[in-house]
Amino acid sequence: MRNFRLTLAYDGSGYRGWQAQPGGGTIQQRIAAAIQEISGESAIVHGSGRTDAGVHALAQVAHVQLATEMPAENLQKALNARLPAEIRVLAAAIAPPEFHARQDAVGKTYRFRWHRAAVCPPFLHRYVHHYPYPLDEAAMAAAASQFVGRHDFTSLAAAGDRRAAAAAAARAAAGQPPLDATREVFRCVLARQDEELVLEVTGSGFLRHMVRNIAGFLIEVGRGRRRGEDIPRMLAARDRRQAGPTAPARGLWLVAVYYPPWQPPRP
Amino acid sequence: MRNFRLTLAYDGSGYRGWQAQPGGGTIQQRIAAAIQEISGESAIVHGSGRTDAGVHALAQVAHVQLATEMPAENLQKALNARLPAEIRVLAAAIAPPEFHARQDAVGKTYRFRWHRAAVCPPFLHRYVHHYPYPLDEAAMAAAASQFVGRHDFTSLAAAGDRRAAAAAAARAAAGQPPLDATREVFRCVLARQDEELVLEVTGSGFLRHMVRNIAGFLIEVGRGRRRGEDIPRMLAARDRRQAGPTAPARGLWLVAVYYPPWQPPRP
Repeated sequence: MRNFRLTLAYDGSGYRGWQAQPGGGTIQQRIAAAIQEISGESAIVHGSGRTDAGVHALAQVAHVQLATEMPAENLQKALNARLPAEIRVLAAAIAPPEFHARQDAVGKTYRFRWHRAAVCPPFLHRYVHHYPYPLDEAAMAAAASQFVGRHDFTSLAAAGDRRAAAAAAARAAAGQPPLDATREVFRCVLARQDEELVLEVTGSGFLRHMVRNIAGFLIEVGRGRRRGEDIPRMLAARDRRQAGPTAPARGLWLVAVYYPPWQPPRP
Repeated sequence: MRNFRLTLAYDGSGYRGWQAQPGGGTIQQRIAAAIQEISGESAIVHGSGRTDAGVHALAQVAHVQLATEMPAENLQKALNARLPAEIRVLAAAIAPPEFHARQDAVGKTYRFRWHRAAVCPPFLHRYVHHYPYPLDEAAMAAAASQFVGRHDFTSLAAAGDRRAAAAAAARAAAGQPPLDATREVFRCVLARQDEELVLEVTGSGFLRHMVRNIAGFLIEVGRGRRRGEDIPRMLAARDRRQAGPTAPARGLWLVAVYYPPWQPPRP
Protein backbone atom coordinates (compact mmCIF):
# COMPACT_ATOMS: atom_id res chain seq x y z
CA MET A 1 0.00 0.00 0.00
CA ARG A 2 1.13 3.53 -0.69
CA ASN A 3 -0.05 6.62 1.13
CA PHE A 4 -1.27 9.34 -1.24
CA ARG A 5 -1.49 12.89 0.02
CA LEU A 6 -4.09 14.96 -1.86
CA THR A 7 -4.50 18.74 -1.85
CA LEU A 8 -8.09 19.61 -2.74
CA ALA A 9 -10.06 22.71 -3.67
CA TYR A 10 -13.83 22.65 -3.69
CA ASP A 11 -16.92 24.76 -4.06
CA GLY A 12 -19.04 23.47 -1.19
CA SER A 13 -22.28 25.07 -2.44
CA GLY A 14 -23.87 21.95 -3.85
CA TYR A 15 -22.53 19.47 -1.29
CA ARG A 16 -23.57 18.23 2.13
CA GLY A 17 -20.13 18.98 3.51
CA TRP A 18 -16.93 16.95 3.61
CA GLN A 19 -17.84 14.07 5.89
CA ALA A 20 -19.47 10.92 4.47
CA GLN A 21 -23.06 10.42 5.54
CA PRO A 22 -25.97 8.18 4.64
CA GLY A 23 -27.56 9.37 1.42
CA GLY A 24 -24.27 10.64 0.04
CA GLY A 25 -23.80 14.05 -1.55
CA THR A 26 -20.60 14.71 0.39
CA ILE A 27 -17.20 15.61 -0.95
CA GLN A 28 -15.44 12.72 0.80
CA GLN A 29 -17.81 10.27 -0.84
CA ARG A 30 -17.43 11.82 -4.30
CA ILE A 31 -13.65 11.43 -4.11
CA ALA A 32 -13.88 7.87 -2.78
CA ALA A 33 -16.25 6.98 -5.63
CA ALA A 34 -13.83 8.43 -8.20
CA ILE A 35 -10.96 6.42 -6.68
CA GLN A 36 -13.04 3.28 -6.88
CA GLU A 37 -13.68 3.93 -10.57
CA ILE A 38 -9.98 4.44 -11.21
CA SER A 39 -8.29 1.68 -9.22
CA GLY A 40 -11.18 -0.51 -8.13
CA GLU A 41 -10.27 0.10 -4.49
CA SER A 42 -12.78 0.94 -1.80
CA ALA A 43 -10.72 3.24 0.40
CA ILE A 44 -11.39 5.86 3.04
CA VAL A 45 -10.23 9.35 2.13
CA HIS A 46 -9.14 10.93 5.43
CA GLY A 47 -9.47 14.71 5.42
CA SER A 48 -7.67 17.10 7.77
CA GLY A 49 -11.09 17.80 9.24
CA ARG A 50 -14.70 18.26 8.28
CA THR A 51 -16.07 21.23 6.46
CA ASP A 52 -19.81 21.85 6.77
CA ALA A 53 -22.32 21.97 3.93
CA GLY A 54 -21.74 25.08 1.83
CA VAL A 55 -18.21 25.73 3.14
CA HIS A 56 -15.47 26.07 0.51
CA ALA A 57 -11.87 24.92 0.50
CA LEU A 58 -8.88 26.46 -1.24
CA ALA A 59 -6.52 23.73 -0.04
CA GLN A 60 -8.02 20.93 2.05
CA VAL A 61 -5.53 18.11 2.69
CA ALA A 62 -6.41 14.41 2.74
CA HIS A 63 -4.61 11.08 2.67
CA VAL A 64 -5.68 7.75 1.26
CA GLN A 65 -3.95 4.36 1.37
CA LEU A 66 -4.05 2.64 -2.02
CA ALA A 67 -2.54 -0.48 -3.56
CA THR A 68 -2.44 1.07 -7.03
CA GLU A 69 1.01 1.50 -8.56
CA MET A 70 -0.16 4.47 -10.57
CA PRO A 71 2.16 7.51 -10.29
CA ALA A 72 0.68 10.21 -8.07
CA GLU A 73 0.50 12.66 -10.97
CA ASN A 74 -1.58 10.20 -12.98
CA LEU A 75 -3.92 9.68 -10.04
CA GLN A 76 -4.40 13.46 -9.89
CA LYS A 77 -5.27 13.64 -13.59
CA ALA A 78 -7.55 10.61 -13.44
CA LEU A 79 -9.40 12.07 -10.44
CA ASN A 80 -9.83 15.46 -12.09
CA ALA A 81 -11.16 13.72 -15.20
CA ARG A 82 -13.85 11.95 -13.15
CA LEU A 83 -14.73 14.44 -10.42
CA PRO A 84 -17.25 17.22 -11.00
CA ALA A 85 -15.68 20.61 -11.80
CA GLU A 86 -16.66 21.78 -8.28
CA ILE A 87 -14.02 19.45 -6.77
CA ARG A 88 -10.42 19.66 -7.98
CA VAL A 89 -7.28 17.82 -6.97
CA LEU A 90 -4.63 20.55 -6.93
CA ALA A 91 -1.80 18.16 -6.11
CA ALA A 92 -1.18 14.49 -5.36
CA ALA A 93 2.04 13.08 -3.92
CA ILE A 94 3.29 9.95 -2.22
CA ALA A 95 3.54 10.67 1.52
CA PRO A 96 5.40 8.70 4.21
CA PRO A 97 3.35 5.62 5.25
CA GLU A 98 2.57 7.13 8.64
CA PHE A 99 1.30 10.50 7.35
CA HIS A 100 -2.21 11.18 8.68
CA ALA A 101 -4.00 14.28 7.35
CA ARG A 102 -6.01 14.88 10.52
CA GLN A 103 -3.73 13.65 13.30
CA ASP A 104 -0.62 15.32 11.94
CA ALA A 105 -2.19 18.73 11.25
CA VAL A 106 -0.70 21.36 13.55
CA GLY A 107 -2.63 24.35 12.29
CA LYS A 108 -5.22 25.68 9.89
CA THR A 109 -6.25 28.98 8.39
CA TYR A 110 -9.88 29.85 7.74
CA ARG A 111 -11.26 32.91 6.00
CA PHE A 112 -14.72 34.47 6.31
CA ARG A 113 -15.84 36.92 3.60
CA TRP A 114 -18.58 39.52 3.89
CA HIS A 115 -19.61 41.48 0.81
CA ARG A 116 -20.40 45.05 1.82
CA ALA A 117 -21.74 46.61 -1.39
CA ALA A 118 -25.45 47.42 -1.68
CA VAL A 119 -25.81 44.75 -4.40
CA CYS A 120 -23.90 41.46 -4.26
CA PRO A 121 -22.40 40.51 -7.64
CA PRO A 122 -24.17 37.37 -8.89
CA PHE A 123 -20.78 35.71 -9.45
CA LEU A 124 -19.92 35.93 -5.74
CA HIS A 125 -23.14 35.04 -4.00
CA ARG A 126 -22.07 31.43 -3.36
CA TYR A 127 -18.78 32.57 -1.86
CA VAL A 128 -19.55 35.47 0.47
CA HIS A 129 -22.09 36.53 3.04
CA HIS A 130 -23.80 39.64 1.66
CA TYR A 131 -24.01 42.13 4.50
CA PRO A 132 -24.77 45.64 3.20
CA TYR A 133 -25.88 47.09 6.55
CA PRO A 134 -23.92 49.58 8.66
CA LEU A 135 -21.07 48.11 10.71
CA ASP A 136 -18.38 49.65 12.86
CA GLU A 137 -15.59 47.86 11.04
CA ALA A 138 -12.85 49.47 13.14
CA ALA A 139 -14.44 48.10 16.32
CA MET A 140 -14.68 44.67 14.70
CA ALA A 141 -11.01 44.74 13.67
CA ALA A 142 -9.98 45.69 17.20
CA ALA A 143 -12.19 42.98 18.71
CA ALA A 144 -10.79 40.28 16.38
CA SER A 145 -7.42 40.42 18.11
CA GLN A 146 -9.12 39.46 21.40
CA PHE A 147 -9.52 35.90 20.12
CA VAL A 148 -5.76 35.40 19.86
CA GLY A 149 -4.32 33.09 22.49
CA ARG A 150 -4.95 29.73 24.11
CA HIS A 151 -8.58 29.55 25.21
CA ASP A 152 -11.37 27.16 25.98
CA PHE A 153 -13.64 27.88 23.02
CA THR A 154 -16.73 26.05 24.34
CA SER A 155 -18.69 29.30 24.07
CA LEU A 156 -17.98 29.30 20.33
CA ALA A 157 -18.57 25.60 19.61
CA ALA A 158 -21.57 24.48 17.60
CA ALA A 159 -24.72 24.80 19.68
CA GLY A 160 -25.71 21.30 18.59
CA ASP A 161 -22.38 19.88 19.74
CA ARG A 162 -23.86 19.10 23.15
CA ARG A 163 -21.63 16.23 24.08
CA ALA A 164 -18.48 18.31 23.89
CA ALA A 165 -20.15 21.25 25.62
CA ALA A 166 -21.57 19.11 28.44
CA ALA A 167 -18.24 17.40 29.03
CA ALA A 168 -16.46 20.72 29.24
CA ALA A 169 -19.07 22.17 31.62
CA ALA A 170 -18.88 19.13 33.91
CA ARG A 171 -15.10 19.31 34.07
CA ALA A 172 -15.23 23.05 34.74
CA ALA A 173 -17.78 22.52 37.54
CA ALA A 174 -15.49 19.89 39.05
CA GLY A 175 -12.58 22.29 38.93
CA GLN A 176 -10.80 20.17 36.33
CA PRO A 177 -8.90 21.69 33.46
CA PRO A 178 -10.81 21.79 30.18
CA LEU A 179 -10.48 18.69 28.06
CA ASP A 180 -10.91 19.13 24.39
CA ALA A 181 -12.38 22.56 23.74
CA THR A 182 -9.02 24.26 24.20
CA ARG A 183 -7.51 25.61 21.04
CA GLU A 184 -4.84 28.17 20.35
CA VAL A 185 -5.57 31.03 17.96
CA PHE A 186 -2.27 32.34 16.60
CA ARG A 187 -3.62 35.09 14.42
CA CYS A 188 -7.07 36.67 14.00
CA VAL A 189 -7.23 39.64 11.65
CA LEU A 190 -10.15 41.45 10.09
CA ALA A 191 -9.49 43.79 7.16
CA ARG A 192 -11.18 45.53 4.26
CA GLN A 193 -10.37 44.29 0.77
CA ASP A 194 -12.22 46.55 -1.65
CA GLU A 195 -15.91 45.69 -1.30
CA GLU A 196 -15.24 42.85 1.08
CA LEU A 197 -14.62 42.60 4.78
CA VAL A 198 -12.36 39.61 5.33
CA LEU A 199 -11.65 37.74 8.55
CA GLU A 200 -8.64 35.44 8.65
CA VAL A 201 -8.04 33.13 11.58
CA THR A 202 -5.07 30.83 11.99
CA GLY A 203 -5.18 28.39 14.89
CA SER A 204 -3.96 25.04 16.17
CA GLY A 205 -7.38 23.60 15.40
CA PHE A 206 -11.02 24.62 15.39
CA LEU A 207 -14.19 23.35 17.01
CA ARG A 208 -17.21 22.85 14.82
CA HIS A 209 -18.71 26.26 13.84
CA MET A 210 -15.95 28.05 15.76
CA VAL A 211 -14.95 30.40 12.94
CA ARG A 212 -18.56 31.04 11.96
CA ASN A 213 -19.30 31.88 15.61
CA ILE A 214 -16.29 34.20 15.82
CA ALA A 215 -17.62 35.87 12.64
CA GLY A 216 -21.11 36.08 14.15
CA PHE A 217 -19.78 37.63 17.34
CA LEU A 218 -17.79 40.20 15.37
CA ILE A 219 -20.96 41.19 13.50
CA GLU A 220 -22.58 41.82 16.89
CA VAL A 221 -19.62 44.06 17.74
CA GLY A 222 -19.98 45.86 14.41
CA ARG A 223 -23.64 46.50 15.17
CA GLY A 224 -22.78 47.94 18.58
CA ARG A 225 -24.58 45.14 20.46
CA ARG A 226 -21.41 43.64 21.91
CA ARG A 227 -17.96 44.99 22.70
CA GLY A 228 -14.53 43.53 22.06
CA GLU A 229 -13.88 43.81 25.80
CA ASP A 230 -16.68 41.26 26.36
CA ILE A 231 -14.71 38.52 24.63
CA PRO A 232 -12.60 37.29 27.58
CA ARG A 233 -15.71 37.03 29.77
CA MET A 234 -17.71 35.38 27.00
CA LEU A 235 -14.97 32.78 26.52
CA ALA A 236 -14.59 32.24 30.28
CA ALA A 237 -18.33 31.49 30.57
CA ARG A 238 -17.89 28.34 28.43
CA ASP A 239 -21.50 28.72 27.44
CA ARG A 240 -22.65 28.84 23.84
CA ARG A 241 -25.52 31.16 24.79
CA GLN A 242 -23.00 33.85 25.74
CA ALA A 243 -21.76 34.22 22.18
CA GLY A 244 -23.93 35.29 19.24
CA PRO A 245 -25.42 34.08 15.98
CA THR A 246 -23.56 31.68 13.70
CA ALA A 247 -22.52 33.33 10.42
CA PRO A 248 -23.68 31.46 7.29
CA ALA A 249 -21.56 28.66 5.81
CA ARG A 250 -21.31 30.21 2.33
CA GLY A 251 -18.90 32.90 3.54
CA LEU A 252 -16.45 30.42 5.07
CA TRP A 253 -13.29 29.15 3.38
CA LEU A 254 -10.72 26.61 4.55
CA VAL A 255 -7.58 28.32 3.26
CA ALA A 256 -4.70 26.11 4.40
CA VAL A 257 -3.76 23.16 6.60
CA TYR A 258 -0.29 23.07 8.15
CA TYR A 259 2.01 20.16 9.00
CA PRO A 260 5.42 20.03 10.67
CA PRO A 261 7.86 21.72 10.33
CA TRP A 262 5.35 24.61 10.06
CA GLN A 263 5.74 27.18 12.81
CA PRO A 264 2.71 29.19 13.89
CA PRO A 265 2.83 32.95 13.33
CA ARG A 266 3.46 34.92 16.50
CA PRO A 267 1.72 38.26 16.75
CA MET B 1 -46.25 55.22 -18.40
CA ARG B 2 -42.66 55.73 -17.39
CA ASN B 3 -39.66 54.22 -19.09
CA PHE B 4 -37.33 52.45 -16.64
CA ARG B 5 -33.76 51.77 -17.66
CA LEU B 6 -32.25 48.79 -15.87
CA THR B 7 -28.58 47.80 -15.64
CA LEU B 8 -28.30 44.07 -14.98
CA ALA B 9 -25.61 41.60 -14.01
CA TYR B 10 -26.23 37.88 -14.29
CA ASP B 11 -24.61 34.50 -14.01
CA GLY B 12 -25.97 32.80 -17.12
CA SER B 13 -24.96 29.29 -16.04
CA GLY B 14 -28.37 28.09 -14.98
CA TYR B 15 -30.43 29.95 -17.59
CA ARG B 16 -31.53 29.34 -21.15
CA GLY B 17 -30.18 32.72 -22.19
CA TRP B 18 -31.70 36.19 -22.18
CA GLN B 19 -34.50 35.88 -24.71
CA ALA B 20 -37.96 34.64 -23.64
CA GLN B 21 -38.89 31.24 -25.04
CA PRO B 22 -41.60 28.66 -24.52
CA GLY B 23 -40.90 26.69 -21.36
CA GLY B 24 -39.29 29.65 -19.62
CA GLY B 25 -35.99 29.52 -17.78
CA THR B 26 -34.72 32.69 -19.43
CA ILE B 27 -33.42 35.81 -17.75
CA GLN B 28 -35.88 38.10 -19.55
CA GLN B 29 -38.78 36.01 -18.26
CA ARG B 30 -37.45 35.93 -14.70
CA ILE B 31 -37.28 39.72 -14.63
CA ALA B 32 -40.72 40.13 -16.21
CA ALA B 33 -42.17 37.73 -13.62
CA ALA B 34 -40.60 39.71 -10.77
CA ILE B 35 -42.03 42.96 -12.19
CA GLN B 36 -45.46 41.36 -12.39
CA GLU B 37 -45.20 40.37 -8.72
CA ILE B 38 -44.20 43.91 -7.76
CA SER B 39 -46.52 46.13 -9.78
CA GLY B 40 -49.01 43.67 -11.25
CA GLU B 41 -47.97 44.74 -14.73
CA SER B 42 -47.33 42.33 -17.56
CA ALA B 43 -44.57 44.16 -19.42
CA ILE B 44 -41.88 43.29 -21.93
CA VAL B 45 -38.34 43.86 -20.69
CA HIS B 46 -36.38 44.92 -23.77
CA GLY B 47 -32.70 44.03 -23.53
CA SER B 48 -29.90 45.60 -25.57
CA GLY B 49 -29.61 42.22 -27.24
CA ARG B 50 -29.75 38.52 -26.55
CA THR B 51 -27.15 36.59 -24.65
CA ASP B 52 -27.04 32.83 -25.22
CA ALA B 53 -27.52 30.14 -22.59
CA GLY B 54 -24.53 30.11 -20.25
CA VAL B 55 -23.28 33.58 -21.22
CA HIS B 56 -22.75 36.04 -18.36
CA ALA B 57 -23.37 39.78 -18.14
CA LEU B 58 -21.55 42.37 -16.08
CA ALA B 59 -23.79 45.20 -17.28
CA GLN B 60 -26.60 44.27 -19.65
CA VAL B 61 -28.97 47.20 -20.28
CA ALA B 62 -32.75 46.90 -20.64
CA HIS B 63 -35.77 49.15 -20.67
CA VAL B 64 -39.34 48.51 -19.59
CA GLN B 65 -42.43 50.72 -19.78
CA LEU B 66 -44.40 50.66 -16.54
CA ALA B 67 -47.38 52.50 -15.09
CA THR B 68 -46.10 52.14 -11.52
CA GLU B 69 -45.31 55.37 -9.72
CA MET B 70 -42.70 53.63 -7.61
CA PRO B 71 -39.36 55.49 -7.48
CA ALA B 72 -36.72 53.77 -9.62
CA GLU B 73 -34.57 53.01 -6.60
CA ASN B 74 -37.45 51.20 -4.93
CA LEU B 75 -38.08 49.18 -8.07
CA GLN B 76 -34.41 48.15 -8.01
CA LYS B 77 -34.67 47.01 -4.38
CA ALA B 78 -37.97 45.22 -4.92
CA LEU B 79 -36.55 43.39 -7.94
CA ASN B 80 -33.41 42.33 -6.11
CA ALA B 81 -35.55 41.07 -3.23
CA ARG B 82 -37.52 38.83 -5.61
CA LEU B 83 -34.97 37.78 -8.23
CA PRO B 84 -32.65 34.84 -7.66
CA ALA B 85 -29.14 35.82 -6.51
CA GLU B 86 -27.85 34.92 -10.00
CA ILE B 87 -29.65 37.98 -11.46
CA ARG B 88 -29.01 41.42 -9.95
CA VAL B 89 -30.30 44.85 -10.83
CA LEU B 90 -27.22 47.06 -10.48
CA ALA B 91 -29.10 50.27 -11.25
CA ALA B 92 -32.57 51.49 -12.17
CA ALA B 93 -33.37 54.96 -13.46
CA ILE B 94 -36.13 56.78 -15.26
CA ALA B 95 -35.11 57.19 -18.91
CA PRO B 96 -36.55 59.48 -21.58
CA PRO B 97 -39.80 58.00 -22.97
CA GLU B 98 -38.15 57.24 -26.31
CA PHE B 99 -35.12 55.40 -24.89
CA HIS B 100 -34.84 51.94 -26.43
CA ALA B 101 -32.18 49.61 -25.03
CA ARG B 102 -31.63 47.75 -28.31
CA GLN B 103 -32.28 50.37 -30.97
CA ASP B 104 -30.29 53.10 -29.25
CA ALA B 105 -27.22 50.99 -28.46
CA VAL B 106 -24.21 52.22 -30.46
CA GLY B 107 -21.65 49.77 -29.16
CA LYS B 108 -20.90 46.84 -26.89
CA THR B 109 -17.91 45.23 -25.27
CA TYR B 110 -17.64 41.47 -24.85
CA ARG B 111 -14.95 39.52 -23.04
CA PHE B 112 -13.90 35.92 -23.50
CA ARG B 113 -11.86 34.25 -20.73
CA TRP B 114 -9.66 31.17 -21.06
CA HIS B 115 -8.13 29.65 -17.94
CA ARG B 116 -4.63 28.41 -18.78
CA ALA B 117 -3.55 26.64 -15.56
CA ALA B 118 -3.33 22.83 -15.51
CA VAL B 119 -6.22 22.72 -13.03
CA CYS B 120 -9.18 25.10 -13.24
CA PRO B 121 -10.17 26.49 -9.82
CA PRO B 122 -13.62 25.14 -8.93
CA PHE B 123 -14.82 28.68 -8.24
CA LEU B 124 -14.17 29.75 -11.82
CA HIS B 125 -15.38 26.82 -13.88
CA ARG B 126 -18.72 28.46 -14.68
CA TYR B 127 -16.99 31.63 -15.83
CA VAL B 128 -14.07 30.60 -18.00
CA HIS B 129 -13.19 28.10 -20.70
CA HIS B 130 -10.50 25.87 -19.23
CA TYR B 131 -7.85 25.47 -21.92
CA PRO B 132 -4.59 24.09 -20.43
CA TYR B 133 -3.07 23.00 -23.76
CA PRO B 134 -0.16 24.70 -25.53
CA LEU B 135 -1.04 27.87 -27.45
CA ASP B 136 1.05 30.45 -29.28
CA GLU B 137 -0.46 33.33 -27.35
CA ALA B 138 1.70 35.93 -29.12
CA ALA B 139 0.37 34.81 -32.50
CA MET B 140 -3.18 34.97 -31.14
CA ALA B 141 -2.65 38.51 -29.83
CA ALA B 142 -1.29 39.62 -33.19
CA ALA B 143 -4.16 37.97 -35.05
CA ALA B 144 -6.81 39.59 -32.81
CA SER B 145 -6.04 43.01 -34.26
CA GLN B 146 -6.99 41.71 -37.73
CA PHE B 147 -10.65 41.76 -36.73
CA VAL B 148 -10.62 45.54 -36.19
CA GLY B 149 -12.49 47.49 -38.84
CA ARG B 150 -15.75 47.48 -40.73
CA HIS B 151 -16.37 44.00 -42.12
CA ASP B 152 -19.07 41.67 -43.30
CA PHE B 153 -18.93 39.13 -40.48
CA THR B 154 -21.07 36.46 -42.18
CA SER B 155 -18.18 33.99 -41.83
CA LEU B 156 -18.37 34.43 -38.06
CA ALA B 157 -22.15 34.38 -37.66
CA ALA B 158 -23.86 31.43 -35.97
CA ALA B 159 -23.83 28.43 -38.29
CA GLY B 160 -27.52 27.98 -37.58
CA ASP B 161 -28.29 31.56 -38.57
CA ARG B 162 -29.01 30.47 -42.15
CA ARG B 163 -31.46 33.18 -43.10
CA ALA B 164 -28.94 35.96 -42.50
CA ALA B 165 -26.15 33.99 -44.16
CA ALA B 166 -28.24 33.13 -47.23
CA ALA B 167 -29.42 36.71 -47.65
CA ALA B 168 -25.87 37.99 -47.46
CA ALA B 169 -24.58 35.39 -49.94
CA ALA B 170 -27.36 36.21 -52.44
CA ARG B 171 -26.66 39.92 -52.25
CA ALA B 172 -22.93 39.30 -52.68
CA ALA B 173 -23.56 37.08 -55.73
CA ALA B 174 -25.73 39.83 -57.22
CA GLY B 175 -22.97 42.36 -56.63
CA GLN B 176 -25.03 44.22 -54.03
CA PRO B 177 -23.48 45.62 -50.87
CA PRO B 178 -23.92 43.44 -47.80
CA LEU B 179 -27.12 44.02 -45.90
CA ASP B 180 -27.05 43.27 -42.26
CA ALA B 181 -23.96 41.23 -41.43
CA THR B 182 -21.73 44.30 -41.53
CA ARG B 183 -20.43 45.36 -38.16
CA GLU B 184 -17.58 47.56 -37.08
CA VAL B 185 -15.05 46.26 -34.58
CA PHE B 186 -13.38 49.21 -32.88
CA ARG B 187 -11.02 47.30 -30.65
CA CYS B 188 -10.02 43.63 -30.39
CA VAL B 189 -7.29 42.87 -27.87
CA LEU B 190 -6.04 39.61 -26.41
CA ALA B 191 -3.86 39.71 -23.30
CA ARG B 192 -2.62 37.57 -20.43
CA GLN B 193 -4.02 38.34 -17.00
CA ASP B 194 -2.25 36.01 -14.56
CA GLU B 195 -3.60 32.51 -15.23
CA GLU B 196 -6.13 33.78 -17.77
CA LEU B 197 -5.98 34.67 -21.41
CA VAL B 198 -8.55 37.39 -21.98
CA LEU B 199 -10.04 38.60 -25.26
CA GLU B 200 -11.87 41.91 -25.28
CA VAL B 201 -13.84 43.06 -28.29
CA THR B 202 -15.63 46.38 -28.63
CA GLY B 203 -17.84 46.81 -31.67
CA SER B 204 -20.85 48.61 -33.09
CA GLY B 205 -22.84 45.41 -32.66
CA PHE B 206 -22.37 41.67 -32.89
CA LEU B 207 -23.94 38.84 -34.84
CA ARG B 208 -25.05 35.78 -32.95
CA HIS B 209 -21.99 33.73 -31.87
CA MET B 210 -19.66 36.31 -33.44
CA VAL B 211 -17.43 36.75 -30.39
CA ARG B 212 -17.39 33.02 -29.65
CA ASN B 213 -16.39 32.43 -33.28
CA ILE B 214 -13.64 35.06 -33.11
CA ALA B 215 -12.44 33.28 -29.93
CA GLY B 216 -12.63 29.90 -31.70
CA PHE B 217 -10.66 31.20 -34.66
CA LEU B 218 -7.98 32.62 -32.36
CA ILE B 219 -7.60 29.22 -30.70
CA GLU B 220 -6.97 27.76 -34.17
CA VAL B 221 -4.27 30.41 -34.63
CA GLY B 222 -2.81 29.55 -31.21
CA ARG B 223 -2.65 25.88 -32.20
CA GLY B 224 -0.86 26.75 -35.44
CA ARG B 225 -3.70 25.53 -37.64
CA ARG B 226 -4.60 28.99 -38.95
CA ARG B 227 -2.71 32.24 -39.36
CA GLY B 228 -3.71 35.79 -38.54
CA GLU B 229 -3.02 36.65 -42.19
CA ASP B 230 -5.90 34.32 -43.16
CA ILE B 231 -8.46 36.56 -41.44
CA PRO B 232 -9.12 39.04 -44.28
CA ARG B 233 -9.66 36.16 -46.74
CA MET B 234 -11.80 34.24 -44.26
CA LEU B 235 -14.00 37.30 -43.74
CA ALA B 236 -14.18 38.02 -47.48
CA ALA B 237 -15.45 34.47 -48.11
CA ARG B 238 -18.65 35.23 -46.18
CA ASP B 239 -18.89 31.55 -45.46
CA ARG B 240 -19.22 30.13 -41.96
CA ARG B 241 -17.29 27.03 -42.98
CA GLN B 242 -14.19 29.17 -43.53
CA ALA B 243 -13.94 30.09 -39.86
CA GLY B 244 -13.42 27.60 -37.04
CA PRO B 245 -15.06 26.09 -33.99
CA THR B 246 -17.35 28.12 -31.74
CA ALA B 247 -15.84 28.69 -28.28
CA PRO B 248 -18.09 27.61 -25.38
CA ALA B 249 -20.66 30.00 -23.93
CA ARG B 250 -19.38 29.78 -20.36
CA GLY B 251 -16.27 31.84 -21.17
CA LEU B 252 -18.25 34.74 -22.67
CA TRP B 253 -19.17 37.92 -20.83
CA LEU B 254 -21.21 40.92 -21.97
CA VAL B 255 -19.17 43.66 -20.31
CA ALA B 256 -20.83 46.93 -21.36
CA VAL B 257 -23.44 48.46 -23.66
CA TYR B 258 -22.90 51.98 -24.94
CA TYR B 259 -25.36 54.76 -25.80
CA PRO B 260 -24.86 58.27 -27.19
CA PRO B 261 -22.86 60.37 -26.55
CA TRP B 262 -20.42 57.44 -26.27
CA GLN B 263 -17.61 57.63 -28.82
CA PRO B 264 -15.96 54.42 -30.01
CA PRO B 265 -12.27 53.93 -29.20
CA ARG B 266 -10.02 54.48 -32.19
CA PRO B 267 -6.94 52.28 -32.38
